[in-house]
Amino acid sequence: MSFEKLLRPESVAVVGASTQPGKVGYEILNNVISDGFTGPVYPINPGAAEILGKKCYKSLTDVPGPVDLAVVVIKRGLVIPTLKEMGEKGTKAAIVITAGFGETGEEGKKLQAEMIEVVKKYGITMVGPNCLGLLNPWHKLNASFGGTAGVPGGIALISQSGALLTSVQDIAAQEKLGWSVLASIGNKATLDEVNFLEGLKNDKNTKVIAAYLENITHGRDFIREAETVSKEKPIVILKAGRTSSGAKAASSHTGSLAGADSAYMAAFDRVGVIRADSIEQLFDISMAFSYMPLPAGDRVAVVTNAGGPGIMMSDALEMLGLKVAALDKATEDKLLATLPAAGSAHNPVDVLGDATSDMYGKAMDIIIESPSVDSMIVVLTPQKMTDEDNVALKIVELSKKYNKPIFACFMGAGSIVKGVGILRDNKIPQYGVPERAAKAMLEMVKYSNYRKRAARVIKTFDVDKKKVAGIIAQYRADGMNEIGEVDAKEIMRAYKFNVPGGKLASTAKEAGQFTDELGYPVVMKISSPDILHKSDSGGVKVGLANRAEVENAFEKMMVTVKERVPGADIKGVLLEKMIGSKDDREVIVGMNKDPQFGPMIMFGLGGIFVEVLKDVCFGLAPLTEEEAMKMIQSTKAYKLLTGARGSKPNDIGAIVENLQRISQLVTDFEEIAEIDINPLKVGAEGAGATLLDARIILTK
Amino acid sequence: MSFEKLLRPESVAVVGASTQPGKVGYEILNNVISDGFTGPVYPINPGAAEILGKKCYKSLTDVPGPVDLAVVVIKRGLVIPTLKEMGEKGTKAAIVITAGFGETGEEGKKLQAEMIEVVKKYGITMVGPNCLGLLNPWHKLNASFGGTAGVPGGIALISQSGALLTSVQDIAAQEKLGWSVLASIGNKATLDEVNFLEGLKNDKNTKVIAAYLENITHGRDFIREAETVSKEKPIVILKAGRTSSGAKAASSHTGSLAGADSAYMAAFDRVGVIRADSIEQLFDISMAFSYMPLPAGDRVAVVTNAGGPGIMMSDALEMLGLKVAALDKATEDKLLATLPAAGSAHNPVDVLGDATSDMYGKAMDIIIESPSVDSMIVVLTPQKMTDEDNVALKIVELSKKYNKPIFACFMGAGSIVKGVGILRDNKIPQYGVPERAAKAMLEMVKYSNYRKRAARVIKTFDVDKKKVAGIIAQYRADGMNEIGEVDAKEIMRAYKFNVPGGKLASTAKEAGQFTDELGYPVVMKISSPDILHKSDSGGVKVGLANRAEVENAFEKMMVTVKERVPGADIKGVLLEKMIGSKDDREVIVGMNKDPQFGPMIMFGLGGIFVEVLKDVCFGLAPLTEEEAMKMIQSTKAYKLLTGARGSKPNDIGAIVENLQRISQLVTDFEEIAEIDINPLKVGAEGAGATLLDARIILTK
Repeated sequence: MSFEKLLRPESVAVVGASTQPGKVGYEILNNVISDGFTGPVYPINPGAAEILGKKCYKSLTDVPGPVDLAVVVIKRGLVIPTLKEMGEKGTKAAIVITAGFGETGEEGKKLQAEMIEVVKKYGITMVGPNCLGLLNPWHKLNASFGGTAGVPGGIALISQSGALLTSVQDIAAQEKLGWSVLASIGNKATLDEVNFLEGLKNDKNTKVIAAYLENITHGRDFIREAETVSKEKPIVILKAGRTSSGAKAASSHTGSLAGADSAYMAAFDRVGVIRADSIEQLFDISMAFSYMPLPAGDRVAVVTNAGGPGIMMSDALEMLGLKVAALDKATEDKLLATLPAAGSAHNPVDVLGDATSDMYGKAMDIIIESPSVDSMIVVLTPQKMTDEDNVALKIVELSKKYNKPIFACFMGAGSIVKGVGILRDNKIPQYGVPERAAKAMLEMVKYSNYRKRAARVIKTFDVDKKKVAGIIAQYRADGMNEIGEVDAKEIMRAYKFNVPGGKLASTAKEAGQFTDELGYPVVMKISSPDILHKSDSGGVKVGLANRAEVENAFEKMMVTVKERVPGADIKGVLLEKMIGSKDDREVIVGMNKDPQFGPMIMFGLGGIFVEVLKDVCFGLAPLTEEEAMKMIQSTKAYKLLTGARGSKPNDIGAIVENLQRISQLVTDFEEIAEIDINPLKVGAEGAGATLLDARIILTK
Repeated sequence: MSFEKLLRPESVAVVGASTQPGKVGYEILNNVISDGFTGPVYPINPGAAEILGKKCYKSLTDVPGPVDLAVVVIKRGLVIPTLKEMGEKGTKAAIVITAGFGETGEEGKKLQAEMIEVVKKYGITMVGPNCLGLLNPWHKLNASFGGTAGVPGGIALISQSGALLTSVQDIAAQEKLGWSVLASIGNKATLDEVNFLEGLKNDKNTKVIAAYLENITHGRDFIREAETVSKEKPIVILKAGRTSSGAKAASSHTGSLAGADSAYMAAFDRVGVIRADSIEQLFDISMAFSYMPLPAGDRVAVVTNAGGPGIMMSDALEMLGLKVAALDKATEDKLLATLPAAGSAHNPVDVLGDATSDMYGKAMDIIIESPSVDSMIVVLTPQKMTDEDNVALKIVELSKKYNKPIFACFMGAGSIVKGVGILRDNKIPQYGVPERAAKAMLEMVKYSNYRKRAARVIKTFDVDKKKVAGIIAQYRADGMNEIGEVDAKEIMRAYKFNVPGGKLASTAKEAGQFTDELGYPVVMKISSPDILHKSDSGGVKVGLANRAEVENAFEKMMVTVKERVPGADIKGVLLEKMIGSKDDREVIVGMNKDPQFGPMIMFGLGGIFVEVLKDVCFGLAPLTEEEAMKMIQSTKAYKLLTGARGSKPNDIGAIVENLQRISQLVTDFEEIAEIDINPLKVGAEGAGATLLDARIILTK
């Protein structure tokens, strides 16, 4: 497979190698050679005989042996001919550094489209264009114009910003953080984050896949691939451009639209992708996964030689929802027998300011062994008696002895350089402040829980798909894409929503006859393909108690609606019997389509929760029962539905089922662009939910 | 003043100086001498002739000249005699390092009390006991057993954790952060944060006062002092223990919501104290204040040589509520004429990866000069062409030329060491990641706004104080401290709350007669000193429409209440005419007392907002009109009161006034421990607010 040639080529050509230091074409060649690539390296430059001691070739074709990977740094106009040449020669992997394609004007976009054609034709795996390159320290490959490859390690980092990699490499070098792959993915003309997920899924060196992304191009593919990968290894993503200013900056930077942040949230959550909020977190979290086993649970023990930082750590853990582990009596007794009198055997365990490394070691061993502890964070401040080097060595020793994550939080700078060095050399995650350690631990716990989730099961309900197909076909035939209440209810009925029986009446008299049959009270709603917002047009009247009221309401409604929406095509009024009890709650459910990730199912409690508090949540279709339940639970309104304030609990199960039915409907019919069910009236537990109004919009 | 002797003594004695390196009594003496203290230094040790080249004395009394400051490190039993000796000699400043006082058992607490007596008697300014010491780099004073004093600077740091200072000093040394004072305040037996605020208020070296605190001992004093100080210089506090101290049992409704942390929040907010959430933030924010002028507004310009980090910075700024400045056309035109074609003249301004320091300099100068920019953050990634040293120098130059804050965000490690060193040497705040820079900028902007606030004016309403005094006196005389609805309403009426007229009836017949006079519908509520939660006891009936219903309800209520609260002393029922319209909203207002900060006024919208969403806010009494308004605006419910969802706006002015009236009441009567007004019915704008139920609890 040619992705393999990209990561582990046996030979590399630099097309556009330069003789001038400082030029990109020189620096890349220099990086390839000086970082120790072991296979043949071919500079391609028609005007030079030799660069950096390597024989130059006029073209790829001239190279005598096979070339696995070509790094392309020639001027824009020659890139496509080079790719063709690669195709002919059988070179299957390319890194195109050259810029001036999709990220620039019309001409660049056209060239990029052509480039994609060529690459597809020859089956070339291409990174870029407009990128910094790719590094694989395990293979001694530095095909980039960034810094040196650094040490081999477990983190694969994919970055949509090339410049960011220069900072990342610099920081990683200091922190001795090791990489399995570092890739700048540029314009992502062909290879994007999805391909890297796929390519790195089985890469034995890669323990965690980290990414800086400004957008995700193929949302559905990403979901599919990330779901598979995150069962095996964690994916940590810093998605920039989440605010409107950030999104604006991103679109001017990459020329691509970022999409709604809520969709990214829903997508990441769905497939267990860990979201980093900053580059610092991307490092902190990736380091934890790369160095430590997963914790079995959320009970964190803290050992410290300073009270203040112990309190800070407790605050940080609790604020994130982790547990400051309650130690079992046996453990506390052992600690009491070990610690000095003024120490604390309660978590956070305080070994006191004058603790020797021996005292630290004994306490840590007792703690990490405890069955009431899932992980441990060792806090250290550099006091006069503190022997940070030997504390670090003890931590290393314990990390080998126990299969539980241990983090260090050595707080300081110059005084602890050596101790921190020992931690880094021995792959102990070290965080300078409590909050960073706590956050990394949180993400380990969350991912560990994700991995334990039951397999996803998408329920399939018995529905009348054919009927829906018929209605949609009719709308298509009529050239209409807005489906109003009457037909929308037919569709929802076909998917076995509980929709009250209603009747369409076109005269006041007819209305009165129908409601006498239905029983009172009734609700009357205007029916017109031209009116989607019925209330605003005076087209809804509730609580009509008898025939006289109904007939009277009909006449008034006709007048009002015609005034407010002149020329509307009015089919009549829809009459329904009003149902419900005081324990009912009205919720809003629906779907709209995200350009990247497709159908997003929406849930929110009606009224102020949606309109004032913006308390809504989204889930990607198709939904499982558990996911539908989690959506509801993630809202603030959830407490109300479970019966807060003395009211009866509502039928949450009915909402869960209806969310799944919407999910099935939109999965069955891709032509549905939007569904708005407002309200769905939810009765008390066991009483089900009734759809009172709905509208559907088809794609154009 | 003896605080001056503490900060700038002319002579120092170390009582308990030791001859053995490693011992605290040796290390302190060593620190005093080796950090260059210029005045006479007297080791006190009856068993030695000389330590570290200084002549030893048997006792303080033996020292020939005056001693301004005594650092006390002798064993616990000798501390008090030493303080007495100091008193006799006229030594007015002491730092007691020795532990074993208030932080330990009964014996220690007794000794600490005695110590306080002695110190008060002699007028000694004493830090500690149980502390690490105090440093003043400007005075070359290192009276601590921590690290070296470091460079003189503008930050005063007070820490309730001694061990934390060792980390702080270590980090500060690396970051070249300078101190005006570093003080470990230990048990705060006499000198606490309030005294330090007072002492540092006029200290010309101190530009910002930072503190790590685990509690604030004297809340009201703190408020008074911090209010004065923060008009002159910013106060930044890391208050630890925010989660563990949250669960405070309280009997009343409002009390259960007022965790101690909310009191700290309200207090800090009231006096402009900046709250740091971590030690990192304490540094980051203090550094900004110590190095830079205040920004005039919230419009931040960003200049960057990398798109990705520019996006991250935009995200960080917007997420905190700062503005990514929209540049004026003149500025953008100037930038367009300067930047390369592929650069971006929109904020974040992208000078591109190959930007020279000259290009950076030109762009920065154009940007910071712009009238549409209040501050600037310079982002830099170390790319091949990047000349971070000269970019740093340009920043230094501009910071001298313009009176606007400029931050650097150089992202990297080894490659930028020299550039960062230039920034640090020249007091340019440097942050390694965008989020930290943005947060520090936010706090500068908020503090700048705080400084611009109008002077606080506490309104005094014309009320009937005498009447309230009478009611309270009666309860005191009766030995009761729970004031039920009837008398509580009398009190609130005396403070000119709008309380509907009601009548107490003791028989069904009487009830019927009264309500015929009041008019219908009416509400009937049980009146009993034994029943505070009327609804739960079946003691409330609303919407009684005629005399028959009233009489019937009376009989039923008597039965139910007697069943549910057997033996309750029932005074009768209170009858009130029901008022209001559909636009009314019920809010909850009240007060409860925080042990540190005193009366906290509470506001929340009734129903789900308080009970489910915990959407309440607190403000310290006495409240100004602006503060009462801010309280309301800070809740999620505020939107509803302003007329969200098509309803009429409510009379927010009436709530604001009532909050101030409660504030006046609880300021007038310290014996009021708790007020719960639930609900206060708020009409449409201009229609006022009516108190429907209230209860008051007196201190025991």
